[in-house]
Amino acid sequence: MSEAGPDTPPAAARPRNLQELVEAARRQGPRRLAVAAADEADCLAAVAQAAQLGLVIPILVGARERIVQAAAQAGENIERFEILEAPDHATAAASAVRLVHDGAADLLMKGLLGTKILMQAVLDREFGLRSRGVLSHVAVFDAPDYDRLVLLTDAAVNVNPRFARKIEIITNALATARRLGIVRPKVAVLAAVEKLDLPAMPATLDAEMLRRLGESGFFGDARVAGPMSLDAALSPERSAAKGLASTVAGDAEVLVAPNIETANTLYKSITCIARHEIAGAVVGAKCPIVVTSRADTPQTKLNSIALAALLCGEEPTT
Amino acid sequence: MSEAGPDTPPAAARPRNLQELVEAARRQGPRRLAVAAADEADCLAAVAQAAQLGLVIPILVGARERIVQAAAQAGENIERFEILEAPDHATAAASAVRLVHDGAADLLMKGLLGTKILMQAVLDREFGLRSRGVLSHVAVFDAPDYDRLVLLTDAAVNVNPRFARKIEIITNALATARRLGIVRPKVAVLAAVEKLDLPAMPATLDAEMLRRLGESGFFGDARVAGPMSLDAALSPERSAAKGLASTVAGDAEVLVAPNIETANTLYKSITCIARHEIAGAVVGAKCPIVVTSRADTPQTKLNSIALAALLCGEEPTT
Repeated sequence: MSEAGPDTPPAAARPRNLQELVEAARRQGPRRLAVAAADEADCLAAVAQAAQLGLVIPILVGARERIVQAAAQAGENIERFEILEAPDHATAAASAVRLVHDGAADLLMKGLLGTKILMQAVLDREFGLRSRGVLSHVAVFDAPDYDRLVLLTDAAVNVNPRFARKIEIITNALATARRLGIVRPKVAVLAAVEKLDLPAMPATLDAEMLRRLGESGFFGDARVAGPMSLDAALSPERSAAKGLASTVAGDAEVLVAPNIETANTLYKSITCIARHEIAGAVVGAKCPIVVTSRADTPQTKLNSIALAALLCGEEPTT
Repeated sequence: MSEAGPDTPPAAARPRNLQELVEAARRQGPRRLAVAAADEADCLAAVAQAAQLGLVIPILVGARERIVQAAAQAGENIERFEILEAPDHATAAASAVRLVHDGAADLLMKGLLGTKILMQAVLDREFGLRSRGVLSHVAVFDAPDYDRLVLLTDAAVNVNPRFARKIEIITNALATARRLGIVRPKVAVLAAVEKLDLPAMPATLDAEMLRRLGESGFFGDARVAGPMSLDAALSPERSAAKGLASTVAGDAEVLVAPNIETANTLYKSITCIARHEIAGAVVGAKCPIVVTSRADTPQTKLNSIALAALLCGEEPTT
């Protein structure tokens, strides 16, 4: 299992949108995907489609009978997929994690079980998938104006991260960005305004300090700017209208939200209001983890599997 | 000055999008708009357009020479507009506010001066525009799926509102919704998830308590639901996929964000990523206040003037 680190060369030419990202994962060749509690029709449909495209080789972990039922419900033929029997959710989570831990799978996906149950197994000190840093969620979406992907963190794992945690969240996002071929990533630390505003808005202080940390070279060649509101980060016209002089403003590639409500609402607005496609993965463990929601579209689920497969690294571990 | 209260009948047939909202303001007839520090080209252009459409009768407050220069820069003929001389920003703010206070204007707009300077004048105990409640920002945008407007609060005034403040923010938003002809408003209190999650996510507790307050009849006939993420609030398919049984889910008309970063980022994503039009006003004072940003488009500025004019009430006070 090779971990996607900041110095790992990109797995493929830089994908400029989610369609190219899926294509890059296909070109890379299949990664072995352990699905914890795979007895869910929509999940199985996405996994079967990803297998069909050559993105993954699934290992379905869970109660065989219920998995077969769910496959029938989804209208999917899963005869060619390996099934690893696990009677209940906790066992399924532990077994799927163990597959990655032991090198028998490359990445992990949440099926029909609570995120907390899966994360308990991931964080198990003996058989889990802890790495040096924290776990965080990274979403990837097609940018509105320019022909590239934009990353958003953290819409799902870290609720109200303090300053030190934000450093780790950015570190994880940068590893992800570099794995996607983004060199010298441009990071916008989001807030509601572009200026330090204390004591009213503590998010602006964190953003200011993260920017200074970036200027000191802490994040390598990544360029970190903020505080910055979303329009200043994404729109060249609006950042110009606001008189911002940063190289990141209007051209951000990584958006760091101050809290989970901001990131989650932005994620949902991208899919529900803007109708753009999106992908997401939990990163920071020894392997990327696909944690889709029941409300995600089939395309989002497929995108997310492709993203996680691509983040596995260049070298299959088989 | 008639204030838009919960029991005030709607000014016009319910506008179903921002174009209809502008049309409703036009049909209502002009309201007298005091512009504080009017020496800004984009602001003057929006005001001139609003006057041309019959939405407002402007009173430009500020340094006459600079106002005339800005009008020339904008290519606008402002000969027909009244100008009230005010040498500096603080004086312009106080004079514009005083016009409304004295009944010589119906609503207020921020020109080229800091929001804080304007708000100091608005909150002045002697000549200001304080009402019973707090000030809050309400944005209005065209909903993605269904033919209606959706309100969003608070993207600009209240940073990290506590529970009691959220009650007042909702009260203000409901008065706005009813003024726009929305009967029995459906209010979604946003969070990152749909369940109470303590101690991790305090926003879910506020949402739960606001829902219960609504069930007790505190907000009249408004229906309040939450905690709810944005897709559950706006998408019938996704709220169904999540198994939510509320009448609000998938059909929300008012979105209440847990903090300013969430609301501001959502506001910006609507304009910058989804490319929908939007309008905004500060409500809760004795008159609505137009507080647009330099980065707002001319159309957003016009929409916002129309929204504020419509919120002034049915009866011109002339």
